[in-house]
Amino acid sequence: MLAGGILRGERVALARGITLVESNKAEHFEAAQKLVENLLPHAGQSIRVGISGVPGAGKSTMIEALGLYLAEKGHKIAVLAIDPSSQRSGGSILGDKTRMERLARNPRAFIRPSPSGGALGGVARKTRESIVLCEAAGYDVTLVETMGVGQGEYAVRNMVDVFVLLQIAGAGDELQGIKRGIMEMADIIVINKADGENKSRAEAARAELRMALHYMDFELPGWKPPVITLSALHGAGIDQFWNAVRDYRTTVEKQMGINERRRRQDVDWMLDVLDREARRLVLEHPSVARLMQQGASAIREGRLSPAHAAARVLEHIKKVFDAHDV
Amino acid sequence: MLAGGILRGERVALARGITLVESNKAEHFEAAQKLVENLLPHAGQSIRVGISGVPGAGKSTMIEALGLYLAEKGHKIAVLAIDPSSQRSGGSILGDKTRMERLARNPRAFIRPSPSGGALGGVARKTRESIVLCEAAGYDVTLVETMGVGQGEYAVRNMVDVFVLLQIAGAGDELQGIKRGIMEMADIIVINKADGENKSRAEAARAELRMALHYMDFELPGWKPPVITLSALHGAGIDQFWNAVRDYRTTVEKQMGINERRRRQDVDWMLDVLDREARRLVLEHPSVARLMQQGASAIREGRLSPAHAAARVLEHIKKVFDAHDV
Repeated sequence: MLAGGILRGERVALARGITLVESNKAEHFEAAQKLVENLLPHAGQSIRVGISGVPGAGKSTMIEALGLYLAEKGHKIAVLAIDPSSQRSGGSILGDKTRMERLARNPRAFIRPSPSGGALGGVARKTRESIVLCEAAGYDVTLVETMGVGQGEYAVRNMVDVFVLLQIAGAGDELQGIKRGIMEMADIIVINKADGENKSRAEAARAELRMALHYMDFELPGWKPPVITLSALHGAGIDQFWNAVRDYRTTVEKQMGINERRRRQDVDWMLDVLDREARRLVLEHPSVARLMQQGASAIREGRLSPAHAAARVLEHIKKVFDAHDV
Repeated sequence: MLAGGILRGERVALARGITLVESNKAEHFEAAQKLVENLLPHAGQSIRVGISGVPGAGKSTMIEALGLYLAEKGHKIAVLAIDPSSQRSGGSILGDKTRMERLARNPRAFIRPSPSGGALGGVARKTRESIVLCEAAGYDVTLVETMGVGQGEYAVRNMVDVFVLLQIAGAGDELQGIKRGIMEMADIIVINKADGENKSRAEAARAELRMALHYMDFELPGWKPPVITLSALHGAGIDQFWNAVRDYRTTVEKQMGINERRRRQDVDWMLDVLDREARRLVLEHPSVARLMQQGASAIREGRLSPAHAAARVLEHIKKVFDAHDV
């Protein structure tokens, strides 16, 4: 039923589907998995673009400008934005109301902010599943916004076709240094805010970046990330950017095939699912949960060290598996 | 042997101990656990301070100024810095050579940069263990530097006594908005770079932040995070900052007791260890690993979806545990 609504492109169904998929409740896991399984054959036709950059780089403005540009060209655009909301109060200080207002009103766009999660590994955990749903609903461009610093980038890079890094002109050396790991993951680099008196700084930054790229290694043979200056605010440079995205896609298609690459990503997807679900399955199993509770009490009363308590639980798990594999 | 060297305060032993503890190799796990277990009774006497802030906020400069100030007062300072190194090339673009140079030469300081890891959950995974080692080696102040945006903050907050957030004056609204979650975790907020022509901006930011804090909830009764302006570059305001750290600690001691809180943190520590080790134990077990390999092949050949392949492995794990718990 939900699947049917999504396939007909109904926004409410799509939104509900993503909510189901994002749920952390154990009882939703199976239904979510079935939904994804049913929709998978109808997915895959969008170009998946990851957009990363530190807070303040202008990711939202860039995505809005790009989305409006693509809508005008007849595309249907899904935006999956990772919302770095407060873990404790469940909302950012300014809220997301003012973000991407114009794009949100466009009938050809679907915007979905998702909480970043908080706990370890929470970033973008279910984004792969959400991409499948959006594609099944008929969106042919999927933009995944991510948070700039940290683990999330690696995860997102591994689920998109093109990974874009937004830079700001004139950011300090420390910032640039820290970004090397992320720069090496970038397929296209954008210097945003190349407008007004910032324009010459942006051009200088571009030259500098191109120098730096010279000494780096990139994954795809025959591709050196282009550095594109752009003013998301005034919509300037968006067409050039989109051409670069398409060029990149063509290169991937030639070198290894988009589908080939996506299947490799799918193996990672399986590993990610196992990573979180296997842990839950095991740690919530009655005999394990009981031992964990005993360990926690012992730690609180100062009778056991954390390492020791953990070791007891691990020994039990090992025993269970060894008994099976004999 | 290693334990003895660490207890005697030998730097080489301490460095080697941390390397052992940080190792991801399965064969090191037990030795590392034993080392921590042996040293735990000699740990706990340092004040543990977490220092967070976006790239460019001046964390290194601040830690160096604070470290030199404390060394002068007779403290021994351990710095655990999370190095956001490139996952692919294994080093940041500028390297860490120029960071905290003066502090690194001080005989009362020990600085340890640790790779942030890359993969999910990799941030600061073994920092708790490293803190124990530093304390056993006689360091009475432990400074944990963390990376500003993302999951790492939650983890670090949960292993220190005082969590400090470094802000920059004049950062955009978006930045401030994004920071709410982290701001609510802060016990002390520092506005760095309050020097030269930036001084009035820093004061304005301070007033603004105090307003914002007004509407937030904080965990510890009787404590509202003070906002301290500081020039790490000129060492101005460091004494005021350190007094705030000590005030905070006194308040914690009065409200619930440092040890009480640390034991609660110890329960989380156990859960973290289980989280990563249980997963590994299970996923590397022969029967599970075999099923995973079959799943990966089937995905690569397009015979199975990722969700389906994962489900098969999960069913197997469940069966093994159900059989045991009957």
